[in-house]
Amino acid sequence: MVSIEGIMPQLLEFRAQREWEQFHLPKELVAAISIEASELQELFLWRERESPDLVKQDQHRMDLIRDEVADVLIYLLFLSHDLDIDLPVAIKQKLDKNRTKYPAEEYRGKFREP
Amino acid sequence: MVSIEGIMPQLLEFRAQREWEQFHLPKELVAAISIEASELQELFLWRERESPDLVKQDQHRMDLIRDEVADVLIYLLFLSHDLDIDLPVAIKQKLDKNRTKYPAEEYRGKFREP
Amino acid sequence: MVSIEGIMPQLLEFRAQREWEQFHLPKELVAAISIEASELQELFLWRERESPDLVKQDQHRMDLIRDEVADVLIYLLFLSHDLDIDLPVAIKQKLDKNRTKYPAEEYRGKFREP
Amino acid sequence: MVSIEGIMPQLLEFRAQREWEQFHLPKELVAAISIEASELQELFLWRERESPDLVKQDQHRMDLIRDEVADVLIYLLFLSHDLDIDLPVAIKQKLDKNRTKYPAEEYRGKFREP
Repeated sequence: MVSIEGIMPQLLEFRAQREWEQFHLPKELVAAISIEASELQELFLWRERESPDLVKQDQHRMDLIRDEVADVLIYLLFLSHDLDIDLPVAIKQKLDKNRTKYPAEEYRGKFREP
Repeated sequence: MVSIEGIMPQLLEFRAQREWEQFHLPKELVAAISIEASELQELFLWRERESPDLVKQDQHRMDLIRDEVADVLIYLLFLSHDLDIDLPVAIKQKLDKNRTKYPAEEYRGKFREP
Repeated sequence: MVSIEGIMPQLLEFRAQREWEQFHLPKELVAAISIEASELQELFLWRERESPDLVKQDQHRMDLIRDEVADVLIYLLFLSHDLDIDLPVAIKQKLDKNRTKYPAEEYRGKFREP
Repeated sequence: MVSIEGIMPQLLEFRAQREWEQFHLPKELVAAISIEASELQELFLWRERESPDLVKQDQHRMDLIRDEVADVLIYLLFLSHDLDIDLPVAIKQKLDKNRTKYPAEEYRGKFREP
């Protein structure tokens, strides 16, 4: 069983073998994350707001979704590596902020206004 | 030391306490990923293509970057949970495809055409 | 009555007075378009797929939508100006391509696969 | 010479012939705008911040850019039609707000913080 972080060495090797560090400037990586996120979103365009179970029934579409999710995450991992961002720590700190910003009693069953 | 996956229970608890599962339909989560990715990108708008070292010098900006990276990842983790996507497996499969699609000899020092 | 194109001189004057041409490189303008498009999308996040009539009932939200639509269009107009893109011609050519790509008989009532 | 607005009847006819009004809910159109904006951005990924003149030298790339710009604008026009947004008015109002928010003296030569 491999963790997300455990794949980082393979990602860095893949990049080094192609000498792509020169293209992977932070500004480019955040653009790439956004572009891949849009490709992921495209797989849901024009469709109703399906339940997870309904989405999961279409194996072909799930393969496409899985690939786009991986693309977003790969660029996110490169960015975090290059900027020394500790992802578990970053998530926990953001979660703490969200707990304060959206008290459970006040926001129960209400979506947060963007 | 906590792994990315190790935070999933806390994320699910945060969501359950607010009864936000009803809003977290896959179509919404992919939209949220894309929106957060844009907020991350906004922190690099109008600026030159800075090196990672230069970006890291600005502590305040790094705090903002860390938060937006966390937001993207949080929604990605919710989506993957809800759609039973095994993220390490998804990354490894995508990496295998990329190794075939972008042979190191052919793409060394050349960026891949989007 | 002013047309969209008729506002271009005002946009260029606004930009020149602030000497912002130096920041408005094409790569930056396309990033700005994408970021503003996400801010527009944020106004629809977590919500059902409402009808136009339902959306129009909320005056405050319509004000926000109008502003974000304007932001997307403003950057699109700057980009088109700077790259000498004739927008009416570009739309007509794209529409011609779409007429061929999506024959009415075949696509009637079916959304186009992204 | 046709204006941007002058193409609206052709766009509506194209849509009506395919009975695509049913898919063009506002939430979908804003997602489509964002997705097309990302495809436009992809044409600038991994590249330096080129000047407009440099971008214009590559005719093939300009064709791709023109098509993606058209796609963003087409969905923006559909959305504005469906929500009764008067685009020239919307731009002018936003421009007025920006004039107040970014006084020329204060922002001359400085990019606005996103």
